Amino acid sequence: PCASTNGKKETNQNLLQWTVADVASYFSAAGFPEQAVAFRTQEIDGKSLLLMQRSDVLTGLSIRLGPALKIYERHVKVLQRTHFLECDDI
Amino acid sequence: PCASTNGKKETNQNLLQWTVADVASYFSAAGFPEQAVAFRTQEIDGKSLLLMQRSDVLTGLSIRLGPALKIYERHVKVLQRTHFLECDDI
Amino acid sequence: PCASTNGKKETNQNLLQWTVADVASYFSAAGFPEQAVAFRTQEIDGKSLLLMQRSDVLTGLSIRLGPALKIYERHVKVLQRTHFLECDDI
Amino acid sequence: PCASTNGKKETNQNLLQWTVADVASYFSAAGFPEQAVAFRTQEIDGKSLLLMQRSDVLTGLSIRLGPALKIYERHVKVLQRTHFLECDDI
Amino acid sequence: PCASTNGKKETNQNLLQWTVADVASYFSAAGFPEQAVAFRTQEIDGKSLLLMQRSDVLTGLSIRLGPALKIYERHVKVLQRTHFLECDDI
Repeated sequence: PCASTNGKKETNQNLLQWTVADVASYFSAAGFPEQAVAFRTQEIDGKSLLLMQRSDVLTGLSIRLGPALKIYERHVKVLQRTHFLECDDI
Repeated sequence: PCASTNGKKETNQNLLQWTVADVASYFSAAGFPEQAVAFRTQEIDGKSLLLMQRSDVLTGLSIRLGPALKIYERHVKVLQRTHFLECDDI
Repeated sequence: PCASTNGKKETNQNLLQWTVADVASYFSAAGFPEQAVAFRTQEIDGKSLLLMQRSDVLTGLSIRLGPALKIYERHVKVLQRTHFLECDDI
Repeated sequence: PCASTNGKKETNQNLLQWTVADVASYFSAAGFPEQAVAFRTQEIDGKSLLLMQRSDVLTGLSIRLGPALKIYERHVKVLQRTHFLECDDI
Repeated sequence: PCASTNGKKETNQNLLQWTVADVASYFSAAGFPEQAVAFRTQEIDGKSLLLMQRSDVLTGLSIRLGPALKIYERHVKVLQRTHFLECDDI
């Protein structure tokens, strides 16, 4: 289980429990409302998000290259790294 | 031959004998009925399934990215690993 | 020259001499008549066949994924390996 | 911060502060006015430019191959290298 | 400068000076008149030609796979190797 789920329940940090809607909300709130739609269209939930590689974000979502580069580098990569550091459930 | 075919005949575990219909049934039963159609359209039988790589599943089937990531990680990879551990017929 | 061309002339084994028609005939006879058309359309002769990589067969011929995986693994790879073992003319 | 920003403010050299318009102007002035439009369409600002790889420039911008090869080799790569040598803010 | 430019001016061997028309003429004379058009359309001059990789020739020019494989292996690769052996201006 996630270290962060000891004591306090922080579903926000446990990507494995994010629904497709949670993922879309996250990217919308992060400043990418247009791209959030693409995540929803491609049915990306937290489990899928954890499995995404750079090329998946850049070409698999059909979003513009500029935002795609930032989404991968600042969000997808960071969420994955944080998850794997804090959780041992995958 | 597959180790698991000693004594009991478990065709289910010997991917080399799966037909295109068997592959489609498997993914349909696994919760991916829509994607099962794509496996059938691309004529993937058990032998082809054993040869699939990540990029083949993600871009060669023209299915949505979210389900594709799970199908590769939880099913194709697992079926291949199990097969190669139990069988020596390839 | 090919080892197999010593004494007996086995053009069948010397891929470098296969024409586009020879390549198409080979795949047609191997059980892939539909895909043979794609090899012909893309103008693949024996010399080109020797240079093909996995991704070229899977995405460069616009053929279905299932047959493409078998064509590469059981035929293209095997023909190339046999050629390079027997011949030193490339 | 960038070494070059000590004392004199050279925004030109700090890619992280380039807007989408700055990037487009740069490539237009560098002799690629047509391709500058593609950078703008894909919303590439300085931060995105720093994250671009060869394949992103060649296939992600939908520009002709000849100019794309020069743009990557003579500009994107050079801008990135210069930035990482002079700055430590990424 | 190119070794071959000492004394005699052999522009033919200095790829860096080839124009888009020179590149097209080269491939036309080499037996690929149809593909020469693609090089011209993609605006490939000598400098771009020196930067081309296998995948650029195979997928970036939209030419048939068979000729593309030969063009890369027998011409692009050879021209690049010759250039880098004889010249030190890149």
